Amino acid sequence: MIETPSLVDQYCHGVLRTELGLGTFEAHLGRGGGPPAPGTTFFDTQTGFAVRRWCPPLLGIEPHCPPARYLARRRELGVLESGRRLLRGSGITTYLVDTGLPGDLTGPGEMASTGDADAREIVRLELLAEQVADTSGTADSFLANLAESVHAASAGAVAFTSVAGVRHPLALAPEPPGPGEVRGAVERWLAGRQVGGVLTDPVLLRHLLWIAVASGRPLQLHAGAGDPQTYFGEFARATAGLGTDLVLLHGYPYHRSAAHLAAVFPHVYADLGPALVRTGARAAAVLAEILELAPFGKLLFSSGAHGLPELHVVGAQLFREALGRVLGTWVAEGAWSLGDAQRVAGLIAAGNARRVYGLPDGPGQRLSDGREA
Amino acid sequence: MIETPSLVDQYCHGVLRTELGLGTFEAHLGRGGGPPAPGTTFFDTQTGFAVRRWCPPLLGIEPHCPPARYLARRRELGVLESGRRLLRGSGITTYLVDTGLPGDLTGPGEMASTGDADAREIVRLELLAEQVADTSGTADSFLANLAESVHAASAGAVAFTSVAGVRHPLALAPEPPGPGEVRGAVERWLAGRQVGGVLTDPVLLRHLLWIAVASGRPLQLHAGAGDPQTYFGEFARATAGLGTDLVLLHGYPYHRSAAHLAAVFPHVYADLGPALVRTGARAAAVLAEILELAPFGKLLFSSGAHGLPELHVVGAQLFREALGRVLGTWVAEGAWSLGDAQRVAGLIAAGNARRVYGLPDGPGQRLSDGREA
Amino acid sequence: MIETPSLVDQYCHGVLRTELGLGTFEAHLGRGGGPPAPGTTFFDTQTGFAVRRWCPPLLGIEPHCPPARYLARRRELGVLESGRRLLRGSGITTYLVDTGLPGDLTGPGEMASTGDADAREIVRLELLAEQVADTSGTADSFLANLAESVHAASAGAVAFTSVAGVRHPLALAPEPPGPGEVRGAVERWLAGRQVGGVLTDPVLLRHLLWIAVASGRPLQLHAGAGDPQTYFGEFARATAGLGTDLVLLHGYPYHRSAAHLAAVFPHVYADLGPALVRTGARAAAVLAEILELAPFGKLLFSSGAHGLPELHVVGAQLFREALGRVLGTWVAEGAWSLGDAQRVAGLIAAGNARRVYGLPDGPGQRLSDGREA
Repeated sequence: MIETPSLVDQYCHGVLRTELGLGTFEAHLGRGGGPPAPGTTFFDTQTGFAVRRWCPPLLGIEPHCPPARYLARRRELGVLESGRRLLRGSGITTYLVDTGLPGDLTGPGEMASTGDADAREIVRLELLAEQVADTSGTADSFLANLAESVHAASAGAVAFTSVAGVRHPLALAPEPPGPGEVRGAVERWLAGRQVGGVLTDPVLLRHLLWIAVASGRPLQLHAGAGDPQTYFGEFARATAGLGTDLVLLHGYPYHRSAAHLAAVFPHVYADLGPALVRTGARAAAVLAEILELAPFGKLLFSSGAHGLPELHVVGAQLFREALGRVLGTWVAEGAWSLGDAQRVAGLIAAGNARRVYGLPDGPGQRLSDGREA
Repeated sequence: MIETPSLVDQYCHGVLRTELGLGTFEAHLGRGGGPPAPGTTFFDTQTGFAVRRWCPPLLGIEPHCPPARYLARRRELGVLESGRRLLRGSGITTYLVDTGLPGDLTGPGEMASTGDADAREIVRLELLAEQVADTSGTADSFLANLAESVHAASAGAVAFTSVAGVRHPLALAPEPPGPGEVRGAVERWLAGRQVGGVLTDPVLLRHLLWIAVASGRPLQLHAGAGDPQTYFGEFARATAGLGTDLVLLHGYPYHRSAAHLAAVFPHVYADLGPALVRTGARAAAVLAEILELAPFGKLLFSSGAHGLPELHVVGAQLFREALGRVLGTWVAEGAWSLGDAQRVAGLIAAGNARRVYGLPDGPGQRLSDGREA
Repeated sequence: MIETPSLVDQYCHGVLRTELGLGTFEAHLGRGGGPPAPGTTFFDTQTGFAVRRWCPPLLGIEPHCPPARYLARRRELGVLESGRRLLRGSGITTYLVDTGLPGDLTGPGEMASTGDADAREIVRLELLAEQVADTSGTADSFLANLAESVHAASAGAVAFTSVAGVRHPLALAPEPPGPGEVRGAVERWLAGRQVGGVLTDPVLLRHLLWIAVASGRPLQLHAGAGDPQTYFGEFARATAGLGTDLVLLHGYPYHRSAAHLAAVFPHVYADLGPALVRTGARAAAVLAEILELAPFGKLLFSSGAHGLPELHVVGAQLFREALGRVLGTWVAEGAWSLGDAQRVAGLIAAGNARRVYGLPDGPGQRLSDGREA
């Protein structure tokens, strides 16, 4: 048996503080933000089935019970107690929390106390820039404040993250934009912007990425549409040797390309969480594909969970079961030794993340507020 | 055991009415239309092996017999009786038939009577436009006749289908062409066209797609070359919320991207038939991949068969066995409940197609002529 | 049991003649040429684990022993004796050797004598052109000498190979460059070139490919970045019917697209070796994917090995085990007959390569110097 007693969730969000009905809960199981098609429900997905498999027992009821029964039990316990039971039942001992999404979500400190775990902050670059823009009157002050904010964040946060590649493919151009280009883009953006306005300008997104690369903190990049070998290779080449690690998030269904990039570039790492949460009963098969090409020191577990503690649970349980099954099969077939399998399991579950993000070794060193450096 | 007693084949063609020799039969097992490479045969493919596995027993001989023996038996029974035994042995109870391919193929009515099943027509947009062009003298009359033909077809047919994305990538541009652009393209096309000339102009192909989108009937789109996330996402975004469903056909080997699009867009559905016919002994593995990301209400069985009733049989048998094996394994592992598995099997085999195409419920309501509304 | 007693390795390189330390050995297990990431090692990869599984027993020690112990034993035996034991233990009876990489590597003759096998030469087009440039003063003499060199090589070598698609995507444009275009490119290249300078001009790379296509010898093309359906389809279409076979090398993770191209174009073949060497414990799963779409007469085994005889061993052992497991499972499930499985195994292991490259039939006809026509 391959054991992974302690998991570092290297990318997730907080959980909602409000009670949820059937519809609001279901919405968090879908993709794309829209409603389900007429005559269908997001509960009829691998994620929905995985939630119904793993979560009811943590709340004291039988697996695979109907959604309405599960939600009734969840309301009966209350959102706080449900969250407590779920997060503490996940086996995750460290949460790295992207605090850059809107909504009434728990922060790292609350994730730590609710989950009886460590928690650290990941800073989302776009939100940081938007917050700086809210309080900067001129292009000059914006650029100065932005540099200062990134510097400050890099002291307290464990990593940066960015959705630049999702928002605009040009944001991943393989060189930083020139100072004049940046200033012009800032001026145009600030001139047309309302408070709270979202950053989508490709020049500014690119500028943000290169400031973050210069900070030395690991930079987590959300995959855009299509194959990362096509749109990410040049950026990886351009940032090789600068001393900053890049972590590709959400690679599925291009996880083999993400693994390839992690094999070719020393500073590129691949995340594997959401691929498992989204594919449920197929998690072991998908994990095995990721394990084909990526060096075992370059893979990082995460749940990618957002809003529902059920998604942290599902991410962790699917990963643990999938890893045990895949590596266990290879040991049984004689392809791997048991010692190697145990060691690799520990790397992917926690060890690689501890090394890349500079976290303290092993479980049992958890921090009370989740922010201690 | 997961049962799928009744299948709706949501995309296929008719079967040939003529006797076939070894070479003409083999040609229907290949891709690309050309001959096999020297020293090779299309019988040495997954499709060829699957035909030899499933079809000989339906004609009363042993599975895996040599192709020559199978074809001798087929000729002995005659093309009509062979077709009868094969189609009735397939387990398909409703055929949706694309009538837009050339050749001496059976239409929906004959598919229904030969197969003792329901059958409905799918209208191929390009053929419709070419037929209208054959009888229209001016651009004005062409455009008026085309609109009328699409309107008439949408009353009688169950869906439209198009190969626009295969013929020209620009046909999937995310907005309809302007009236002047369309008129100019029609004039150029009619001026240079012989009777029977094929439509390849990207503006007219695009115009056709948007007329069909406006009709409200489901629109089946053949996948072009490459990853649909790359070339289809914009069209999906542009047609979201218009009330017309899009069904992606022939997604393999990009079936995971097709499943992703079906997860993200409420009006996008994914077909899974030809992927199984082409991959034979691997059908369960390929089906499992499609089941990773697509919501279970968004997947539709089809055979994609053309010309040979053997391909309808293989499509149905591979699907039934693959679905039973994949879902049965998940039930055995505890990942799914048996009740969920039975329900999902029924959705993919028939229920989703009945809902999307507005077909009457369940088996046993089959129509005699296959065209009843 | 599916048996493959004799393997034709249709694409590999020679082995190093020098003793290797831990670091120099490890470097040959990585991708991309760079060092491993800090805190990681290339031994922690599927290739590294596969080497530790298959190779120690051939040198008389236990599988999965630590790398340092394996390398100590290797040095104890000496590089020659180790190479002899490894190559002779691989089961490969014919090596087709690309002689176009730098380094102190054994040529075909030495591969044949060390491995007690046949060996033939594959000529790398870029190296040929660079060698011709080293001795040609003018564009005219370069073009004449190049034509003569290709002609001479096509008499002695078994195939051409090219990395043109890796070096420049435009090299795969679907028509030969015009004479004036070629002459201009030659003049520019020679004018700016030092002796030993590498060929990267897209016009000249394209010219090389089309000269090779005209030679009639099989042309092996290294896959570039991304999906070959995207960048290779046009070239395949343009060269169809010219009488020259194209062999796609290194398709993984786009092996399904490579298989699709082999299914659609009679003159296109797919290689499957490196995909297995790189994926180790997953070799059977990857092989099964390649076997989905490719006609069984269009797949060719290779190791793709370079530098380490361990990689020839791993390529052969992973292939043999994977093929036996995949085909054996299909026979056990009733999907294939045993006779078909044995026949297909023989085709992929050796028969297809013998036919495509015009090699003498069967094992036991091995040549002493590896160059006999």
